[in-house]
Amino acid sequence: MKEVNLNKHERLDDLLCNDMQIIQSAEVFSFSMDAVLLSHFCSVPTKGNIIDLCTGNGVIPLLLTARTKGNITGVEIQERLADMAHRSVELNQLQHQIRIDQGDIRHYHETCGYGQFDLVTVNPPYMRDSTGRQNINEYVAIARHEIRCTLEDVIAASSKCVKSGGKVAMVHRPSRIAEILMIMQQYRLAPKRIRFVHPHVHKEANMVLVEAISDGKPDVRLLPPLIVYEADHQYSEEIKRIYNENNMKVESCNEHEQQ
Amino acid sequence: MKEVNLNKHERLDDLLCNDMQIIQSAEVFSFSMDAVLLSHFCSVPTKGNIIDLCTGNGVIPLLLTARTKGNITGVEIQERLADMAHRSVELNQLQHQIRIDQGDIRHYHETCGYGQFDLVTVNPPYMRDSTGRQNINEYVAIARHEIRCTLEDVIAASSKCVKSGGKVAMVHRPSRIAEILMIMQQYRLAPKRIRFVHPHVHKEANMVLVEAISDGKPDVRLLPPLIVYEADHQYSEEIKRIYNENNMKVESCNEHEQQ
Repeated sequence: MKEVNLNKHERLDDLLCNDMQIIQSAEVFSFSMDAVLLSHFCSVPTKGNIIDLCTGNGVIPLLLTARTKGNITGVEIQERLADMAHRSVELNQLQHQIRIDQGDIRHYHETCGYGQFDLVTVNPPYMRDSTGRQNINEYVAIARHEIRCTLEDVIAASSKCVKSGGKVAMVHRPSRIAEILMIMQQYRLAPKRIRFVHPHVHKEANMVLVEAISDGKPDVRLLPPLIVYEADHQYSEEIKRIYNENNMKVESCNEHEQQ
Repeated sequence: MKEVNLNKHERLDDLLCNDMQIIQSAEVFSFSMDAVLLSHFCSVPTKGNIIDLCTGNGVIPLLLTARTKGNITGVEIQERLADMAHRSVELNQLQHQIRIDQGDIRHYHETCGYGQFDLVTVNPPYMRDSTGRQNINEYVAIARHEIRCTLEDVIAASSKCVKSGGKVAMVHRPSRIAEILMIMQQYRLAPKRIRFVHPHVHKEANMVLVEAISDGKPDVRLLPPLIVYEADHQYSEEIKRIYNENNMKVESCNEHEQQ
């Protein structure tokens, strides 16, 4: 593994997936369980081209290298996060497979062309710009709130990047599910697989995973609920299995991050 | 309880909710667990006006009398089913609370006027007209397939019947959820509460309950999964509780009916 230069407030975490490490920062960006579950949920082509929009510190491209030999592009609008992602890719010597671009997803198709990707993944800002922006810095605000791109921007960009018959996989909050499914269909993305994540089996969902196919027919499989905790406050067998498949310690991601 | 005239192939079942009985027919219509769960799921006003579209043999209006003193209208396009529903209402001496109208939901607002109902319930035909119509008679076909009304017709009719701020509650198949949420929003119905029903916790959902509010903002609560069976093939505690709250034997509805 290469040496790494860490900036102020940055730390190096073991991703514990293929012995990878990742640069994180509590002040700027650290990944959450959402990214891990999306990386596990999406239908990954063994070869081909993948793009991760709103890639943050590049956690999803890094995790996807354990599932595919395909080329992965990560796009992040914030220069400081894109730089963290870029250094994590170099640190793990994955430059041959992952490319990080600093840029605006709303215009990225002008760089890469329409319909170039077999899979688009995205863990976008969850919150409408007007809600709950107290006490967070600008880096965190942009990652969590629809300041630089709206839900419609994210879906429109996904639709432009994906090839016909390709997949778009997104993680988001269940409160937005009606909008997500409506806007996807407006952008010719047919939702095909949906999975809700519930903290406990008796609790409301706090996360949703959606996969759509470009130019398909809407015909949804509503997968079994993904339950995070059992009654005894231990992680469920499935969560343990997901993290084990990634060779990843459950503790290594910040699941309590309120994006 | 009054005497009842049963037609050929009809039988009288105990609804076991407030000692009610209901006329059913395996050849024409018998209610399923879907109707029971919708009656339990919907937010019922204690007073006011309720309409049940596609009412079939009137099971939902009958069950709702256990939850409200409000006036309930049931609309059914098939004369033979509307007649069964009408006779069940008389049998239970509920004519003061339930009115059954034989008619087409697509034009019912011309009879009742726009925006007259606090709650609209609907358990519509689930299947696109083109799929799987083998080996069933015309009564059953119309109840199960979009022959006389499409999903959009059902949502449009609900939107015309409900008053601003009123609720629309629907039970349907999860495979249609993307269309349902899109069309609801197109008809100014904001989905607010969604609950998926899974046969087992590790199985895909086979039913979905959706409640929308007229002229509201889309902001969905995704309720805990409703699990029908436990690992030991027994009904879950929640299903038993729902049927007990209705004073209803689980066996009295045909849960295996493939609508």
